[in-house]
Amino acid sequence: MKSLRFENQQLNVADVDMPRAAEAGEALVRVLVSGICNTDLEIARGYAGFQGTLGHEFIGVVERAPDEAADLIGQRVVGEINAGCGRCALCAVGDPRHCPERTVLGIAGRDGAHAEYLRLPAANLLSVPDDITNERAVFCEPLAAACGIVERARIDDGMRVAVVGDGKLGLLCAQAITAQTGASVTLIGKHQSKLAIAARRDIEIALLDELPKNLPRFDVVVEVSGAAGGFALALDLLRPRGTLVLKSTFHGTTNFDAARIVVNEINVVGSRCGRFAPALALLHKHAIDVESLISEEYTLANGVHAITRAGASGVLKVLLRP
Amino acid sequence: MKSLRFENQQLNVADVDMPRAAEAGEALVRVLVSGICNTDLEIARGYAGFQGTLGHEFIGVVERAPDEAADLIGQRVVGEINAGCGRCALCAVGDPRHCPERTVLGIAGRDGAHAEYLRLPAANLLSVPDDITNERAVFCEPLAAACGIVERARIDDGMRVAVVGDGKLGLLCAQAITAQTGASVTLIGKHQSKLAIAARRDIEIALLDELPKNLPRFDVVVEVSGAAGGFALALDLLRPRGTLVLKSTFHGTTNFDAARIVVNEINVVGSRCGRFAPALALLHKHAIDVESLISEEYTLANGVHAITRAGASGVLKVLLRP
Repeated sequence: MKSLRFENQQLNVADVDMPRAAEAGEALVRVLVSGICNTDLEIARGYAGFQGTLGHEFIGVVERAPDEAADLIGQRVVGEINAGCGRCALCAVGDPRHCPERTVLGIAGRDGAHAEYLRLPAANLLSVPDDITNERAVFCEPLAAACGIVERARIDDGMRVAVVGDGKLGLLCAQAITAQTGASVTLIGKHQSKLAIAARRDIEIALLDELPKNLPRFDVVVEVSGAAGGFALALDLLRPRGTLVLKSTFHGTTNFDAARIVVNEINVVGSRCGRFAPALALLHKHAIDVESLISEEYTLANGVHAITRAGASGVLKVLLRP
Repeated sequence: MKSLRFENQQLNVADVDMPRAAEAGEALVRVLVSGICNTDLEIARGYAGFQGTLGHEFIGVVERAPDEAADLIGQRVVGEINAGCGRCALCAVGDPRHCPERTVLGIAGRDGAHAEYLRLPAANLLSVPDDITNERAVFCEPLAAACGIVERARIDDGMRVAVVGDGKLGLLCAQAITAQTGASVTLIGKHQSKLAIAARRDIEIALLDELPKNLPRFDVVVEVSGAAGGFALALDLLRPRGTLVLKSTFHGTTNFDAARIVVNEINVVGSRCGRFAPALALLHKHAIDVESLISEEYTLANGVHAITRAGASGVLKVLLRP
């Protein structure tokens, strides 16, 4: 089958064997659409140490499943990307997201979704209601990550929240917080055209280069720009005892002044994956504009070009079809 | 009066005017004993931008007070070091610790405690019970800072807590957490003699150079070493979704890998000052060994030498007497 792989520091579309038949609780999924995430770009730059098939955002149809999950066969599904060992203390309490032995679809130890087929534990799969199109459902994984912010940071009615970074994940974060809380959300970014997507959903917007000097401080700042200066800017925007949510998994080290965190008693919270159910629910009720985030679509055969395009300025989500 | 001052990048003992008579809600305090903190050393190295009389740990006797606090006159007192503007939103909710216009005793905009007399708002002062000696009471400020950790990080019974750094503040933090919670506390440091003080209080101890490779991960790590590598070590010690408490206000920037905080969904919490009342209560019931932390004492006239000694290897708390 065709797959978009990163091997020996090279990105290429390769013909590989189909994933083996379902075993050990795993299901075989035929991919319908996959989405390119910035993490894919990091991997393709060789920053993440992963070799294999890229991709962790997908919607597909279950072709094979273990007996206990036979009802999934033929269903359209999305899937949580972390597969735990099933034996450790974290797996035992239902949190394979942090299992130290976990594999992660297209990110660590497990071939990913930019392929004709993929495998995941059947327990990771969620059926997608018929009225959510493939093009909406493929956003379930990054939207779940955006929804995960409220699991990690307390956001009360009337709080002031800033999201720094108007990329595709920033746009999902600003919308998810608006949909899930009674907070007043401001999206800060560099691109008038991207900010406009948020503005249509009644989110306050601000151009980074035109921030008012006397901007009132925010209770919560979500840093999702991935820029080296994003951390310092976030600290500038935050009130004392405010919460800084780190959402970017960009690689390399960041310089920061630890004394600022201590003196202002800031809370810095890392947030990665989230649960899929709340994300599916938001997609179902059209609470999130994901259509405006789709910039381009390619066939899997053009996957290398698609990755290049996904990293180009002004481009938001790029989708692949096998 | 005599005072230990940092001016024009020079540390010296100088004769200065007495603080003006009490006005605007402020009391005049005759200092009995003051303690040298690492923040004083940072200021004396010119890192903190403060000019004036150093010192923010003290016990003294009130000599003058505004009418509404006349009952304080003659009493032995300790004092919270942040003086808010009294008008802003943070002061209005009783949190002058983060007032943007605040002055801080011996740290920002207000002469400090290494002097014969100091001034503070009468509202900042707390009477010290007779049975707490001067030498114990002078630890109230740093112990309050240590007690402040449980205000910022949730520490439940049975949790595993590591304190990294066996300096004077680390020793207070390890003891305060042990006294205030049902957690199991491990102090990690470089000095067998300092660790021994904690061991006598039934705190687990570990030499940094001899940490077992397979050390179980901690739920909470308190970084109080002030060392550049302390942040990375703390992340190594922490379980996924654990809490890292930053307690050191060392200056300069730290390098860190933000992706680790995101991927492991770590909570980083800055913690600076704490409330004095819980600290006084712990001193009152002898829950904390502070006597073992006193390394040397000097008269204020020898203040410059005392500051040098306080920065020497193996030296813990150095006290000054006017």
